[in-house]
Amino acid sequence: MRAADVGDTIMGRLVSRCGAIQAVEAIRARTLPPDFAAREAAEERPADLGRRLSTWHARLTASDPVSDLVAGERSGARLIIPGDAEWPTQLDQLGAARPLGLWLHGSADLRFSCLRSVAVVGARAATAYGAHVAAQFGVGLSESGWTVVSGGAFGIDGAVHRGVLASESPTVVVLACGVDIAYPSEHHALFAAVRDQGVIVSECPPGVHPTRARFLIRNRLIAALSRGTVVVEAALRSGALNTATHALSLKRHLAAVPGPITSAQSAGCHRLLRDQKATCVTSPEELIDLVGVMGDDLAPLRRAPALPRDALSESTRRVLDAVPARGGAGPASIAVAAGVDLNTVLSALGGLAAAGYIERVPKGWRTRRTASPVYPKAQETLAFNTPPPSAPTDHTPPPTDPDQFPTTESASPRGGAMPVV
Amino acid sequence: MRAADVGDTIMGRLVSRCGAIQAVEAIRARTLPPDFAAREAAEERPADLGRRLSTWHARLTASDPVSDLVAGERSGARLIIPGDAEWPTQLDQLGAARPLGLWLHGSADLRFSCLRSVAVVGARAATAYGAHVAAQFGVGLSESGWTVVSGGAFGIDGAVHRGVLASESPTVVVLACGVDIAYPSEHHALFAAVRDQGVIVSECPPGVHPTRARFLIRNRLIAALSRGTVVVEAALRSGALNTATHALSLKRHLAAVPGPITSAQSAGCHRLLRDQKATCVTSPEELIDLVGVMGDDLAPLRRAPALPRDALSESTRRVLDAVPARGGAGPASIAVAAGVDLNTVLSALGGLAAAGYIERVPKGWRTRRTASPVYPKAQETLAFNTPPPSAPTDHTPPPTDPDQFPTTESASPRGGAMPVV
Repeated sequence: MRAADVGDTIMGRLVSRCGAIQAVEAIRARTLPPDFAAREAAEERPADLGRRLSTWHARLTASDPVSDLVAGERSGARLIIPGDAEWPTQLDQLGAARPLGLWLHGSADLRFSCLRSVAVVGARAATAYGAHVAAQFGVGLSESGWTVVSGGAFGIDGAVHRGVLASESPTVVVLACGVDIAYPSEHHALFAAVRDQGVIVSECPPGVHPTRARFLIRNRLIAALSRGTVVVEAALRSGALNTATHALSLKRHLAAVPGPITSAQSAGCHRLLRDQKATCVTSPEELIDLVGVMGDDLAPLRRAPALPRDALSESTRRVLDAVPARGGAGPASIAVAAGVDLNTVLSALGGLAAAGYIERVPKGWRTRRTASPVYPKAQETLAFNTPPPSAPTDHTPPPTDPDQFPTTESASPRGGAMPVV
Repeated sequence: MRAADVGDTIMGRLVSRCGAIQAVEAIRARTLPPDFAAREAAEERPADLGRRLSTWHARLTASDPVSDLVAGERSGARLIIPGDAEWPTQLDQLGAARPLGLWLHGSADLRFSCLRSVAVVGARAATAYGAHVAAQFGVGLSESGWTVVSGGAFGIDGAVHRGVLASESPTVVVLACGVDIAYPSEHHALFAAVRDQGVIVSECPPGVHPTRARFLIRNRLIAALSRGTVVVEAALRSGALNTATHALSLKRHLAAVPGPITSAQSAGCHRLLRDQKATCVTSPEELIDLVGVMGDDLAPLRRAPALPRDALSESTRRVLDAVPARGGAGPASIAVAAGVDLNTVLSALGGLAAAGYIERVPKGWRTRRTASPVYPKAQETLAFNTPPPSAPTDHTPPPTDPDQFPTTESASPRGGAMPVV
């Protein structure tokens, strides 16, 4: 991640071909696999591979990954890579543009948060109308159990994040700089609140500052993490339209909110509507209708774990039982309480977090309290009650892979991906 | 027209079957053709034909068509029926719902006006935003040589008509009451201005007052006369959506203007956009892009007659030459000046008006001054110069029927209907 800048698809192809470890060795040895070099040379616009390799080598040599990890942990951040329990597999659809890894900082589990998520994006120079709409969408989406993903920027991003936080729900902020950098700096307090209730995400290593290019590259993550993107307000040349383009190429749903035709800040949204690239949405409910999966969203929503308890393995269930409901316990105490070895505990904890049973707290882990949000704002239920081991009463097919991520292709005919109990 | 109320499709089918004259005789004799009665009885929801016939008979008996025509002429109105030179043939697409005739009052030729026309409709309870947008569309469409058709009501209709009149251009007002009745009465002065510069249209005989049913029935004419309809502002249950539905069923273009999602008055427009029934337009230019025909509208527009002079017959050309450029002359003086008999003059005058060469004035007829509106507001040119008898320089095919009315079916692939010289 230090060797290549974000969005380096050549590095992406190299890692894809020989794995991260061999890629590092190849760079250190300044020797790329010959077939790889040949295929890159055959590309339509072949890059200067020699120069790229030199740059990688120099940056790799200058890097200190161990101290990156130590510093990250000390600050409370964590690094996830493909294959980790918390890795959102929908990112794999980016192919060679997939991030090599992600730095995270926050209490929410990224994978679980993004199972039912929408990206809400728009202009930095938002109008009062746009900010109002974004905040309303933040509230409405959260109350229906949908996680909002956005970029933490001025304007629409900030407004939607604040709406979500006001509903005491988690939100995902994807930055174009290291997770240790607050950009814009005015959002310092906002990001602190998100770390408490949600999660900050970045593809950039700590200490890396944002650039225009990194903003655009970051946008693909916003689109890829979520099931759909809604552009709340955008001028004709807004960066939010870049996120919209990513959503379309990833076959995610795309929506736009109209506004007065006298407002230049809505012209980008209107262009998307006119070209029929985006669906016109005028409320959170309409957006959910668009991105939701039948049987999963049309019924009153319960924000419950994605996998029924009786589908857990026995050791995982024992780990779950050993996780306290209040306070928090570290992996070692959980191992003792569960009568299970530490390695088992560690991998079980990852899966339980991804499935939504447990959450991180400063002291370690605790079980999540499940809320049942319906229209309007609902009350929180007690701790999750295990369902009887009978057929599910809802219409979704039996749970298969809780992380199956429906795209607009697989979503029609509707059904079959998001089990809810 | 006195016998049946507007929109009486059974009467429409009767006239279609045996012609207006025989229909009147049948009603007087209270005897409908047996095959006609049989087919009506076989309809999915057969009407009580006997009762309908009695009603027709009673109304017919009470009517006095001669004095209708006399009174009409005295007030300055005229009656046109299918087959007349001024009859817009696109109305024939209404089938059995085609009006039996139309009362007109105003200086503009209806057929010519509607060749390049769009309907601009919307809420009576318009917001300031909606009224502003409607007026802007009125100005922009007129300056591009497009005639606006609307209903003369409060709100959006009034605003767009006023925008057109401010551009000193003709507009078409389709009423749901007799042309001698100003409804709403507050628009009395507006209608007087329209009679000066445009034309008031009604399917209702003089003296008939509007009812809710007649408003809805009138809407089909607004949709049918024009090439496309744009809904500027409409609440979820607005009557303007009724006009939109007619436009769709007549395969006319349909557009809608978005607004703030916080405005209930735009909710109907947003519904049309969301359901992808209407195209999102945010300017007169975008609307013209939608309804225009290639080669006809993409070039700078000239508001010129629809038929080249050398395609006119010799007698018609002689009549044209005898029509003064200023003031006005009646048919008799024109006949003398042209050395042509009066009947020939009368039919030539109709065709010349339909083709846009001449216009009505209080004193009779005069040649039209052609303006060349381009973006922004252009200067008026001199009187139309006849083109040399060579191939047309624009891309439209040679003129065939100047009244060919492209629908969304015939308009793709584009081309072939609206010759412009």
